[in-house]
Amino acid sequence: MTAQFNRITLIGIGLIGSSLAHDIKRLGLANEIVVATRSAETLKRAEELKLGDRYTTSSAEAVKDADLVIVSVPVGASESVAKEIAGTLKPGTIVTDVGSTKASVIAQMQPHMPSHVHFIAGHPIAGTEKSGPDAGFPGLFQGRWCILTPLEGTDPVALKTLRSFWEALGSRVDEMDAQHHDKVLAIVSHLPHLIAYNIVGTADDLETVTESEVIKYSASGFRDFTRLAASDPTMWRDVCLHNRDAILEMLARFSEDLAYLQRAIRWGEGDKIFELFTRTRAIRRSIVQAGQDVDAPDFGRPHPLEKK
Amino acid sequence: MTAQFNRITLIGIGLIGSSLAHDIKRLGLANEIVVATRSAETLKRAEELKLGDRYTTSSAEAVKDADLVIVSVPVGASESVAKEIAGTLKPGTIVTDVGSTKASVIAQMQPHMPSHVHFIAGHPIAGTEKSGPDAGFPGLFQGRWCILTPLEGTDPVALKTLRSFWEALGSRVDEMDAQHHDKVLAIVSHLPHLIAYNIVGTADDLETVTESEVIKYSASGFRDFTRLAASDPTMWRDVCLHNRDAILEMLARFSEDLAYLQRAIRWGEGDKIFELFTRTRAIRRSIVQAGQDVDAPDFGRPHPLEKK
Repeated sequence: MTAQFNRITLIGIGLIGSSLAHDIKRLGLANEIVVATRSAETLKRAEELKLGDRYTTSSAEAVKDADLVIVSVPVGASESVAKEIAGTLKPGTIVTDVGSTKASVIAQMQPHMPSHVHFIAGHPIAGTEKSGPDAGFPGLFQGRWCILTPLEGTDPVALKTLRSFWEALGSRVDEMDAQHHDKVLAIVSHLPHLIAYNIVGTADDLETVTESEVIKYSASGFRDFTRLAASDPTMWRDVCLHNRDAILEMLARFSEDLAYLQRAIRWGEGDKIFELFTRTRAIRRSIVQAGQDVDAPDFGRPHPLEKK
Repeated sequence: MTAQFNRITLIGIGLIGSSLAHDIKRLGLANEIVVATRSAETLKRAEELKLGDRYTTSSAEAVKDADLVIVSVPVGASESVAKEIAGTLKPGTIVTDVGSTKASVIAQMQPHMPSHVHFIAGHPIAGTEKSGPDAGFPGLFQGRWCILTPLEGTDPVALKTLRSFWEALGSRVDEMDAQHHDKVLAIVSHLPHLIAYNIVGTADDLETVTESEVIKYSASGFRDFTRLAASDPTMWRDVCLHNRDAILEMLARFSEDLAYLQRAIRWGEGDKIFELFTRTRAIRRSIVQAGQDVDAPDFGRPHPLEKK
């Protein structure tokens, strides 16, 4: 297979950046991978893991002669990266990102991008709760969706090239405007993370129930939330700060619904409770049918006596 | 191994009842298993699955000559079961249950129990989101905790026998009073389920985000919640109605904390958000260390290219 790009530069080499590195290498999508990250320590680890061909702590240096630049940093760092790389991008380079919020990333980066490059923001809907260059693995994007949020005037050829890149990783690609992306992700991703962090915090603060009890009996539901609540704090702080309006809107809806449920519990309205608890099952089935989750009970967590 | 009991009667043969049947048979804990359930259809399925040795839709009939009776029904059905079996229990029988709320089950059952039996309420902290007799499997209780809530005057020998039963299934056994159990479970189990049901309901009701979008992009967090929200609606309705006070207390704490987080997001207080998102990681680590969850990323969900 001919490499799709001569040089791909990865700025940021955490879970997403390192997973990209594994796949670009595995699939031969570039002749050369340049890895850039601000932290010398992380860069060293990336080199030990052989994630790229060249390594630098200078983003400006890293993007020279790159055909594709993928920025995988906490969304709050987008503007500083854009400023750093603006002066050294060659004409025709495609610059994209993988951030969880899109309107903010576009607002931070687009004004700094020279007119001779193609900036197209993007967001692969994939990940785990782990972070750092050791967390990446080949195939993370396989079967997952990637959302691109092109702007008016985005070059259709560059867009097509970027789509092909994600498709080569096994992803399916959707396009939508950044505002809509941010609303969708507020409900499917940002709110779930916030709620998970919040409930784990609530449990941690109780006086009547000990932390040891919370831990011992967590298999009854709680442990599910602790996975999301173990995600990278910097990344998620930035998401909260950079998708504020959509998150606050979804939080308000959630709280309103929760107050309704709370009232039904207080007044013993079993029929209202039952109605909610019934229709939520259908969504689970649809998610499994769409190949977006496993059908195995308990997420397929191993049980001691199960045959593997 | 000598059977621990001559006859064990299982009343209710859903996820927990059928898992008990698998383990009692596998471990030879009884010479005879009697299966009772109100639904003729479920009973037929239990028989097809060879879960017991005798099958009946009459609980009164089923408990005759039983040495151990385990009631595994939605907690709201506890009183009617107690009334049905009261007249046919032989002296010395141990009667227990597996319900998720304990004060209510005791209040429903204890008054009907004849003085010649040993009633000790219990709750194995184990399960999956699946329900029905097909959902059970051997080893469900292995490595999980089981909480017993003996009363003043509970016979110590009967209590010891019941402990040994759960230990034979691989569980570790704790004892506490029913009120404390209900508070602990409200935070580690009932609240997580309520929150999960609620957020899935909120997503289902949105006008600006389609159900298809929620499903496609659910791998970004949302799908985790749909597992709990696919749990048995009757069982969870009953939990809400029968652990009302503790659940309302925990809901109030949760909502208060969520309002604090919401305010921090609104005012851009990144430090407060970061502080919460950092300390929640520690609890995840403790749960994994305690053997109550897997360390594998993403609950060990299979990724296409992973080596098995």
